[in-house]
Amino acid sequence: MFESAELGHSIDKKTYEEEMPRLREALLEVQHELVEKAAFPTFIILAGVDGAGKGETLKILNEWMDPRHIQTNAMGTPSDEERERPYMWRYWRAFPPKGKIGIFMSSWYSTPILDRVFGRTADSQLDQAMERIVRLERMLTDEGALILKYWLHLSRDGQRERFKALEKDPRTSWRVTERDWKNLKRSDEFKTVNERALRRTSTAFAPWTIVEGADDYYRYLTIGKSVLEALRKKLKNPKPADSVSPSPPSVPSLDNLSIIRKLDLTQSLTKKKYQSQLEKYEGQLNILTRKPEFQKIDVVAVFEGNDAAGKGGAIRRAIGGLDARIYSLIPIAAPTQEEKAQPYLWRFWRHLPRKGRVTVFDRSWYGRLLVERVEGFCSEADWMRAYSEINDFEEQLYYSGAVLLKFWLTITPEEQLKRFQDREATGFKRFKITEEDWRNREKWADYESAVCDMIERTSTEIAPWTLIEANDKRFARIKVLRTFCQEIGKRLKKVKG
Amino acid sequence: MFESAELGHSIDKKTYEEEMPRLREALLEVQHELVEKAAFPTFIILAGVDGAGKGETLKILNEWMDPRHIQTNAMGTPSDEERERPYMWRYWRAFPPKGKIGIFMSSWYSTPILDRVFGRTADSQLDQAMERIVRLERMLTDEGALILKYWLHLSRDGQRERFKALEKDPRTSWRVTERDWKNLKRSDEFKTVNERALRRTSTAFAPWTIVEGADDYYRYLTIGKSVLEALRKKLKNPKPADSVSPSPPSVPSLDNLSIIRKLDLTQSLTKKKYQSQLEKYEGQLNILTRKPEFQKIDVVAVFEGNDAAGKGGAIRRAIGGLDARIYSLIPIAAPTQEEKAQPYLWRFWRHLPRKGRVTVFDRSWYGRLLVERVEGFCSEADWMRAYSEINDFEEQLYYSGAVLLKFWLTITPEEQLKRFQDREATGFKRFKITEEDWRNREKWADYESAVCDMIERTSTEIAPWTLIEANDKRFARIKVLRTFCQEIGKRLKKVKG
Repeated sequence: MFESAELGHSIDKKTYEEEMPRLREALLEVQHELVEKAAFPTFIILAGVDGAGKGETLKILNEWMDPRHIQTNAMGTPSDEERERPYMWRYWRAFPPKGKIGIFMSSWYSTPILDRVFGRTADSQLDQAMERIVRLERMLTDEGALILKYWLHLSRDGQRERFKALEKDPRTSWRVTERDWKNLKRSDEFKTVNERALRRTSTAFAPWTIVEGADDYYRYLTIGKSVLEALRKKLKNPKPADSVSPSPPSVPSLDNLSIIRKLDLTQSLTKKKYQSQLEKYEGQLNILTRKPEFQKIDVVAVFEGNDAAGKGGAIRRAIGGLDARIYSLIPIAAPTQEEKAQPYLWRFWRHLPRKGRVTVFDRSWYGRLLVERVEGFCSEADWMRAYSEINDFEEQLYYSGAVLLKFWLTITPEEQLKRFQDREATGFKRFKITEEDWRNREKWADYESAVCDMIERTSTEIAPWTLIEANDKRFARIKVLRTFCQEIGKRLKKVKG
Repeated sequence: MFESAELGHSIDKKTYEEEMPRLREALLEVQHELVEKAAFPTFIILAGVDGAGKGETLKILNEWMDPRHIQTNAMGTPSDEERERPYMWRYWRAFPPKGKIGIFMSSWYSTPILDRVFGRTADSQLDQAMERIVRLERMLTDEGALILKYWLHLSRDGQRERFKALEKDPRTSWRVTERDWKNLKRSDEFKTVNERALRRTSTAFAPWTIVEGADDYYRYLTIGKSVLEALRKKLKNPKPADSVSPSPPSVPSLDNLSIIRKLDLTQSLTKKKYQSQLEKYEGQLNILTRKPEFQKIDVVAVFEGNDAAGKGGAIRRAIGGLDARIYSLIPIAAPTQEEKAQPYLWRFWRHLPRKGRVTVFDRSWYGRLLVERVEGFCSEADWMRAYSEINDFEEQLYYSGAVLLKFWLTITPEEQLKRFQDREATGFKRFKITEEDWRNREKWADYESAVCDMIERTSTEIAPWTLIEANDKRFARIKVLRTFCQEIGKRLKKVKG
């Protein structure tokens, strides 16, 4: 795989000095267009073996282009805020918005590769990690991003020579560390693992370009021209190819039966029973979240449901049992400008809680599978791919130690009508009912089948949906609160045990 | 001061149940208007003695109003990302945007008061801290915010009774901690310090309201009504009273002399000397930032200057000496929507570096004193108050361990003309020159006097301006780089020593 990058490619100074100014000018021009149009985000990953010139290449790119629109990310040790969230959080945090270029010096590839080389993981785990990366990069390109991945290569001898040359010069000797020499001894292991990783992640939408690192001029011109071509091409045709539908469209329900319709919506609670259960579970939740082991987990709760199903009331009771210090409530409305310049899931990633905290989303990423699908706010390809994107996202949450609670609150159309009318009649509830609510109501059947699809495809073992029969508000609130207690309780036992 | 909050205020259940629904409805309505208009940010500070019902009041406010537009902030132990920035960073991070209400359970008052009670600071330091808070709150209200501060009071006996009652009930006993009993023993010291703090911070624009905490109904209704009235009043008349000009307008220069005009702009460097100095200082800077003690400080560098003075080139050389892992370059353009919903300085606070890092601002908060002043983008009152707001901001940076470098790059009008013409003639430089640049040039004199005022009023001992003679680009770049090395070097010696 790396053979063609050990051929001794080189370019003479004269050619370099002839070509460089033109390339530079062209790069600046194309970058200017990118910025002006805020066309798409560009990810440049500079990876490869030590000593192959990643740092110098970074410098050259910043010199040739306008550095004000380049974000350099060379992640060091994660901060505690980063460690307490899913592994990918720090990268999401650093994603370039549309129009900007993000250069990643150490990327999502670093840890999985190092873990495998040093025997902390097995091949199967490396493969899994690479599979996750492929899905991430697929999502990014589907969202419109350009991903350029350069692997800077040097043979083992080439690396050794390079280290020696750097060490000789007092101005550069600091750049060679003990770790570099240590890693060099493992260069065979590195080669095997690198090959395996690259093979699995060189995809049509985000291919690797392997570049020989020995000759500076060759490396600079090769990468510079490649960046230029890719930007030009994408600016001409910025729309990503529509994804092949990742799963067949939903099976139409012929017998009018659905998981939603099978719910027993007559369930209810007396006021007295409600009061005593409310007190019981709020107290229980409070005690659970005060246990020392709660500091090892976090809770992400998602509330979705029919309009007027009582999400707000249920949320208020759920957080009623929590110390104000530990929860935040995130209402999901229209995305802000900064959020629109990022992939769809970015605005949810940014609110993920630290350990020991609870985040409650009032509406959520499921908007894509519900309102955006039904109202046609996104293309079919977009919402079709969202099923697996969301499953990936939730898997990451789960593995980072989050308890994920997803509630769907269901009411009957008749109950909804009653509540709408009640809202219109009551002074301080009037602002809760809009024209849009009445319009959505007319699409009841479309929403219902969207909900059924959503539940079928995103209710997984690690992130199941809890369906809440919500015709009776008291019953609904207690079921939500009880689910909080049960699921958090279960996880705490696991963490402790 | 607290006498009137020890009178035994109380409200009977009947009155409460009569008034509560109306109050609730009115609060919801007024909050709805606030949200719809995104009128202004509201800060509610719930402070006071332990056991006086801060937590319950928070809950009631969330119950009475729409919790989706309320952000609760009850700060626990700061994270490392917070500790490595100025004390106020975590609060800026939590500021509510326009239209939202931020309730602060522990606020910027907590630490200074506790520090004084436990003898870690002297009265004079408490006073200083309160003085800083007054300036912060003045700035916030000048920026349009509504600040409501409630001090919940209980006498010592009242506190003791309350703790005992809570401890008796198994459902609430967890709420009384050892710390509460310990603090109770110091209640005299607390009273003295609290009084001193409140006296100094009860201002016309952000007064304290002292509320007796013994009776729940009384407390809820009092605070609820106060919030309602304040929101109503401010919605009717959202504009803050124009600040009294904090300092007299600038003295006109009668003799045509200025700090800018006295600079010797003929200074220059030969190419050879430039090359050797560039290498020298880039190497020096690199070594400085690799020292272990650099992890205890951070660097904030600000670049301002005439159009075409060469800021970009100077910045590129300065960061050329830095490891890509430690710096970020923040270009300041038009604020985003999220930034516009916050006080002016917010968009700079959000980019402050952690310890061991460097942030370079290409243009900065000084925009307010330059382009915004000259072009009339903000009112005179706004830019007049900015001098002291900026000095406050930079003082906080300094005391948190930042090295603050502020560069003003000066060229002559003749040199600027030459560069403009050169830009228009050169392909890849053409996008760097716009109509606006030509327009700004016509206001040379206005800008010059704005610059002189800025330097006069914001060049302080802890945050001095470095004026860069930039007619010769080489000379300018080396002077910038040398200043980086000198100032960082000086600070590192202090930190180590």
